[in-house]
Amino acid sequence: MAKSISLLWGAGSPPCWRVMITLEEKKLQGYKRKLLSFEKGEHKSQEVLEINPRGQLPTFKHGENIVNESTAACLYLESQFRSQGNKLIPDTAAEQAMMYQRMMEGLTLTEKLNSVIYYEWFVPEDERHDTAVKRNREALKTELRLWEGYLEKVAAGSYLAGAFSLADVIVFPNIAYALRFGLSVERYPKLAKYYRLLKDRPSIKTSWPPHWLPSPQGYDTLKNL
Amino acid sequence: MAKSISLLWGAGSPPCWRVMITLEEKKLQGYKRKLLSFEKGEHKSQEVLEINPRGQLPTFKHGENIVNESTAACLYLESQFRSQGNKLIPDTAAEQAMMYQRMMEGLTLTEKLNSVIYYEWFVPEDERHDTAVKRNREALKTELRLWEGYLEKVAAGSYLAGAFSLADVIVFPNIAYALRFGLSVERYPKLAKYYRLLKDRPSIKTSWPPHWLPSPQGYDTLKNL
Repeated sequence: MAKSISLLWGAGSPPCWRVMITLEEKKLQGYKRKLLSFEKGEHKSQEVLEINPRGQLPTFKHGENIVNESTAACLYLESQFRSQGNKLIPDTAAEQAMMYQRMMEGLTLTEKLNSVIYYEWFVPEDERHDTAVKRNREALKTELRLWEGYLEKVAAGSYLAGAFSLADVIVFPNIAYALRFGLSVERYPKLAKYYRLLKDRPSIKTSWPPHWLPSPQGYDTLKNL
Repeated sequence: MAKSISLLWGAGSPPCWRVMITLEEKKLQGYKRKLLSFEKGEHKSQEVLEINPRGQLPTFKHGENIVNESTAACLYLESQFRSQGNKLIPDTAAEQAMMYQRMMEGLTLTEKLNSVIYYEWFVPEDERHDTAVKRNREALKTELRLWEGYLEKVAAGSYLAGAFSLADVIVFPNIAYALRFGLSVERYPKLAKYYRLLKDRPSIKTSWPPHWLPSPQGYDTLKNL
């Protein structure tokens, strides 16, 4: 089955990583994949645009079915391969509620991280303001503290919604990203603990962004947050 | 069952509308609901913050389970009440792929609409730029044309992913919103057709934003798009 799956991906992109973690969890190793370079603009290449008119990565295909939005691809894979590999949607109503809630909140976390990390990429030079940078950083700080609080309420050894689930698939790459960009493990001890709990999980370790391996802590953008 | 459900909502908010449409589709009429005013800042009231630390609407509870993100609440309701009312996730892999994809892309559409309609709300006066306004409008135009293209490929009388599904629940309120803000039905004939196909569907008609009824076309923000 894995042979009918193909993924075009970019290294270090949390959305790509989510799909790769899900493929590992669902025991779909052996799928076709091709690493493209954001730096070289390969996400805007014809090869991508034919499958994904947005020119974004991941670009994902299963047989003739195209699912490019990362959260959509994860939901689709869990639904199509429900009884294969690890179950990523819990059974109880309480855990499902928590899972869907944290999964979707994870996208807000992504957005707030991007607004700080990629400010200069998103905003043309003439339109940049120190006040906006400061506001984005404050908003990210508030967001990260919210997650710190969520994790404080979680039972010892538990993931975001009980057992490992799609909530973790969506959220973990963001946390790894924040730490790579210098987030303080002292000021965010619960996020750091969550990171340590998950970083060696086989699905995550196997799909770890290859260029992160030689230099785990890449930048200090978030150091003082 | 509906009695254990409560919703705090704001009129005209696409995220609130999504949850209300889903509740109707799942035959959960009779749930508790309370209309709050964004203008009076009631979404930041203690009543909301106790359930939703983000101070946003919708704020949704089913028994003790809290699911505030609108897409999460819709997925949760469909999962919990699968065999009740209309089925909102299709059976075939091809339709599921399309449904999850369009559902998640619907959130990008929301974001791009908001960046134009609420520019002055989001961006402090000192940080506003005509170039940014222009760029946001161009991005929204590109986004709307993408959806126009998606609908062009859909079979006659069909919804976004075959039968009516969560994709329509998430996307339709955005389309109604765009038209209310003056989007041209001549320049976007497929979006207009999709709007006409859905506007009288009972779940949608019943939950129509009450203050839109006396004045269907409210603004001309998007008139020239």
